[in-house]
Amino acid sequence: MIIVMKSNTNESDIKDVISLVESRGLQTHLSTGSQITIIGVIGDKSRLSDCNIELLNGVDKIVPVTESYKLANKKFHTNSSIVKVGNVEIGGSDFIIMAGPCAIENKKQIIETAHTIKKSGAKILRGGAYKPRTSPYSFQGLEEEGLKYMAKAREETGLPIVCEVTSLKSVETAAKYVDMFQIGARNMQNFYLLKEIGKTNIPVLLKRGLSATIDEWLNAAEYIMSEGNKNVVLCERGIRTFETATRNTLDISAIPVIKQKSHLPIFVDPSHATGKRPYINSLSKASLAAGADGLMIEVHPNPAEALSDGPQSLPPKDFDDLCDELRPFAKLVGKTL
Amino acid sequence: MIIVMKSNTNESDIKDVISLVESRGLQTHLSTGSQITIIGVIGDKSRLSDCNIELLNGVDKIVPVTESYKLANKKFHTNSSIVKVGNVEIGGSDFIIMAGPCAIENKKQIIETAHTIKKSGAKILRGGAYKPRTSPYSFQGLEEEGLKYMAKAREETGLPIVCEVTSLKSVETAAKYVDMFQIGARNMQNFYLLKEIGKTNIPVLLKRGLSATIDEWLNAAEYIMSEGNKNVVLCERGIRTFETATRNTLDISAIPVIKQKSHLPIFVDPSHATGKRPYINSLSKASLAAGADGLMIEVHPNPAEALSDGPQSLPPKDFDDLCDELRPFAKLVGKTL
Amino acid sequence: MIIVMKSNTNESDIKDVISLVESRGLQTHLSTGSQITIIGVIGDKSRLSDCNIELLNGVDKIVPVTESYKLANKKFHTNSSIVKVGNVEIGGSDFIIMAGPCAIENKKQIIETAHTIKKSGAKILRGGAYKPRTSPYSFQGLEEEGLKYMAKAREETGLPIVCEVTSLKSVETAAKYVDMFQIGARNMQNFYLLKEIGKTNIPVLLKRGLSATIDEWLNAAEYIMSEGNKNVVLCERGIRTFETATRNTLDISAIPVIKQKSHLPIFVDPSHATGKRPYINSLSKASLAAGADGLMIEVHPNPAEALSDGPQSLPPKDFDDLCDELRPFAKLVGKTL
Amino acid sequence: MIIVMKSNTNESDIKDVISLVESRGLQTHLSTGSQITIIGVIGDKSRLSDCNIELLNGVDKIVPVTESYKLANKKFHTNSSIVKVGNVEIGGSDFIIMAGPCAIENKKQIIETAHTIKKSGAKILRGGAYKPRTSPYSFQGLEEEGLKYMAKAREETGLPIVCEVTSLKSVETAAKYVDMFQIGARNMQNFYLLKEIGKTNIPVLLKRGLSATIDEWLNAAEYIMSEGNKNVVLCERGIRTFETATRNTLDISAIPVIKQKSHLPIFVDPSHATGKRPYINSLSKASLAAGADGLMIEVHPNPAEALSDGPQSLPPKDFDDLCDELRPFAKLVGKTL
Repeated sequence: MIIVMKSNTNESDIKDVISLVESRGLQTHLSTGSQITIIGVIGDKSRLSDCNIELLNGVDKIVPVTESYKLANKKFHTNSSIVKVGNVEIGGSDFIIMAGPCAIENKKQIIETAHTIKKSGAKILRGGAYKPRTSPYSFQGLEEEGLKYMAKAREETGLPIVCEVTSLKSVETAAKYVDMFQIGARNMQNFYLLKEIGKTNIPVLLKRGLSATIDEWLNAAEYIMSEGNKNVVLCERGIRTFETATRNTLDISAIPVIKQKSHLPIFVDPSHATGKRPYINSLSKASLAAGADGLMIEVHPNPAEALSDGPQSLPPKDFDDLCDELRPFAKLVGKTL
Repeated sequence: MIIVMKSNTNESDIKDVISLVESRGLQTHLSTGSQITIIGVIGDKSRLSDCNIELLNGVDKIVPVTESYKLANKKFHTNSSIVKVGNVEIGGSDFIIMAGPCAIENKKQIIETAHTIKKSGAKILRGGAYKPRTSPYSFQGLEEEGLKYMAKAREETGLPIVCEVTSLKSVETAAKYVDMFQIGARNMQNFYLLKEIGKTNIPVLLKRGLSATIDEWLNAAEYIMSEGNKNVVLCERGIRTFETATRNTLDISAIPVIKQKSHLPIFVDPSHATGKRPYINSLSKASLAAGADGLMIEVHPNPAEALSDGPQSLPPKDFDDLCDELRPFAKLVGKTL
Repeated sequence: MIIVMKSNTNESDIKDVISLVESRGLQTHLSTGSQITIIGVIGDKSRLSDCNIELLNGVDKIVPVTESYKLANKKFHTNSSIVKVGNVEIGGSDFIIMAGPCAIENKKQIIETAHTIKKSGAKILRGGAYKPRTSPYSFQGLEEEGLKYMAKAREETGLPIVCEVTSLKSVETAAKYVDMFQIGARNMQNFYLLKEIGKTNIPVLLKRGLSATIDEWLNAAEYIMSEGNKNVVLCERGIRTFETATRNTLDISAIPVIKQKSHLPIFVDPSHATGKRPYINSLSKASLAAGADGLMIEVHPNPAEALSDGPQSLPPKDFDDLCDELRPFAKLVGKTL
Repeated sequence: MIIVMKSNTNESDIKDVISLVESRGLQTHLSTGSQITIIGVIGDKSRLSDCNIELLNGVDKIVPVTESYKLANKKFHTNSSIVKVGNVEIGGSDFIIMAGPCAIENKKQIIETAHTIKKSGAKILRGGAYKPRTSPYSFQGLEEEGLKYMAKAREETGLPIVCEVTSLKSVETAAKYVDMFQIGARNMQNFYLLKEIGKTNIPVLLKRGLSATIDEWLNAAEYIMSEGNKNVVLCERGIRTFETATRNTLDISAIPVIKQKSHLPIFVDPSHATGKRPYINSLSKASLAAGADGLMIEVHPNPAEALSDGPQSLPPKDFDDLCDELRPFAKLVGKTL
């Protein structure tokens, strides 16, 4: 941590800052320039968490130089993590596709979809039982009934299943059925929920918030991990910008940035990122080429009749074509699809 | 709702769209131009919620012309709402200030603050017992113990109290103590929480999400109201933009926009909006002048020792000066402070 | 400037960085921590402008601690500047309103408008002769003919005139007529144009770019000032965000931020900021209350027939009412309108 | 164009709107619903450009249904355009890489770079002679002297050359040397400059503005094309968002969006998009996989000594490796590199 003092600071203010910092058992280094004086702070800065140094007289600003997340940080865990979901390994040499409908609508829909996506090459089945919808008047999900259909689909196909949870109650219910929790973008900073999930050992797909910085996203992962659950997979799904041609703006750079800053696997959800079916093919290839560990893609037996997110869902035939097109790209980056 | 067809659409696709819409008991009006054909849909569009018209052949896009929120919409409730918190009326002729520390730290701190802000002119005491913090290693709040101190402060001063809730469990606990719930920016689209709060009749201060549009914000209010709780007060607290000189960007335009679109009262929180004490005075005056119904301001007996958000908290003396400076502005807009 | 080294840096890399910095006549201070090593650099950092220190082995990042703008910086010019436009003083005890049509359309329109806004209390006449329009098929302005009408309006009313310039050619032409140049948002980083204007001594209204940070904006002012022209007035006109309820998002916080960082006067243009007439009244009051030195407001004798920006223009009667409503607010902040 | 009327509009207001529209020779279609009335307008909407329909009594809003750009629009030019720069074809079956230093610094630097990038596979040499820099105190470019060095480099290697222009004067000078103009992000809406370039027939690389929507970008292309110059290549270079881990946020979705909306070729500049060398490899592959027609990459013989943008420049060895890694990806998408 670096403390930058205001240009006209007097000696006594500088001494006060140094005294306070050193009183907590930390060391300081003083650099006095003609325009500016800076104080380097050496040691565990959490010892200063109860004093607001930037409010002391003469202090201009504080510049943090270390990240606040530790368990998710590559600096301290240099090997890439592999997260196991059922018998599927995420973050290893396989390029993993999770697919399925935005919302589980009925038993037939989810079981049919499971069979079809498995045949195309998907390894994990997704499906929403608890739907966070912008309007209270939109379809809100089948809840536990939907989870039962998902479990049935797993029984028939052997595919592990992933479902979004939105509350402690849904965590408790879903824990009985799912192989992986999903935390949606709107709940990325629902810290209470993150902690509850951290207390389980069920793997988690942690979607990036609509306006979350990568730093905040890794701190959200830290919430889960600091409770004991290390099985976190990140999922970029587009951020909110001024551009309206797409539903969100896929931050493709997040892939190399996460690979540099963290050891956790990273997925991309091109369905939510664009909100439009014609762009999914292009962005799926881009994500694979950029180094993603996998994709989450919405597939619906009949998108025109989907109760949620139809416009961004692929019909089975298009999904099958997409997998075929992705295969040689996967091979090129040394992965198996 | 307007359905815009692609420029090269054939007759039969147009007929199919019209048939589907009319099969749900809605009426259509067809406008055929040289370049473009549009189909106006007349009637309750919720009857179409299970069909994704934009996926039909020939459809270019759907243009909604009515808002999806009803109970929060000024069109259907033209009189401004007044929300009563304890004996305080929000949205009427009083300009209401809620003040207090970001986090309740101990009994002495909150009681002292309550006395001091009351003397300055604040009408409601705020204090955080459940703190959503970006890092899991930051102070997380005193929880129920904190609520008890708040209740004690109310007992001593008569000020109603408002506290943030972040989960069903905290709703259940806080309901025993508080006069008003606060939904924080990070939970604005925690729809599960919104519904739970909607089932109570305790007033709610609903903060705008960091990247929520005004339309999404009013839909979040709709979630609460559609469960029966109509006592919603909106609170603008800055949105996330590229500018880094302030913690967030206060969207001052939200005040007249909300006044035009909704009948609900609107507050501004200049403390979170800027994150910096020197700008609070200026933005408080601006908010009052722009037509806000009140302010939420962080006050701490000793900001330099605050466990949370010290840099944006005012010391009691500055808060007192601020109230004095605001009073003539309130008078000018016909309000009492 | 602070150089933060990577956590695993070796001694020799650190020495190399220090050697390079010191070879330019600068001093260094080394702070070695358990996790991180930082090197403070003391002296004129422009001596390092030809070496990219962040590319040296072991360097993690560079943290600048001083601003790159000097002439626009309040640190070095603590008194607020007053800019004189004709006989009007901007930045002093008068609250100045510039008003007029977005585009000059004909002689009658501009002269009538000049008379009417003068009567209402405006001190400077605005009007566009060179219009930057998103589409090449929109009205582009009357050019020199328009400037002549403006000059005629000044002759009749005594009001100084301000016009946007968009190229060297328009600067040369406009210099013969106007009392103040305007640099529009889209040209805020047209550095070539800024320098040309810097070579004149005609005052400049420098609008903030649609996505310009406050730091970039002050650097744009620096471009003009470093060529010799110190008569710069800043104008906040809304930034681009995800919100679509308004044309742009007025960054009201820019007012106190600029007042803290710079000595230059600051205006607000609520017409462009919102793009909608019903919000102008509210934002004008907010800007005045927040500490702005003046407003730029679009007024058109008949907005419904305006060739440009009609929806955000006030008719004369509304403008007159607005001035009347603003007067007591101006008095309250110690200014004359 | 669709005119949406307010919910409480009376008959006479509706008639007035219809009369006005029809008085310009356009047709209308009226759809009257229980809540809302809409008026479809059929015909050439430019006939309405001098009347602000949204200001008429009873009008709620105008919904445009056709794009304002025509020449750049795929609807009217369904075949993909090929732009010829020297003997290099952009938009065809070759994947084209433009490479070179951000700024031309001296003759040796640019000629060496030309030879090295040619050997690696680049087809066009880039180099900046007029540098738009945020601070006036940064290196501003060698101007005409730099262009002469570029021409010399072309003479030695046969590579066509592309240079940024920032003013009419630089257009006139550069026209004597370059094979392609570049319009930088900061000048994307410098409409005066766009028109001047439109009057030449020299191909143009049009970079997207930092906060330009895709719609505005295509309108900027329209400015050039409407003056007669159809040789426009678009270049995505990152947009401005709240994320700070990268210099800008590469909008990878712009590639499929542009391919759908326009017939013009699209490039990506991963150097400016990220501002950081370690991410360039990953984003180059992503861009190619997503369907881009080429890349613009900054290469400097010794980035650590670059006068501009060193941190995002590749040294020749890394560039050579990148080209080798990209080649199989190009083959996979059916292109030659």
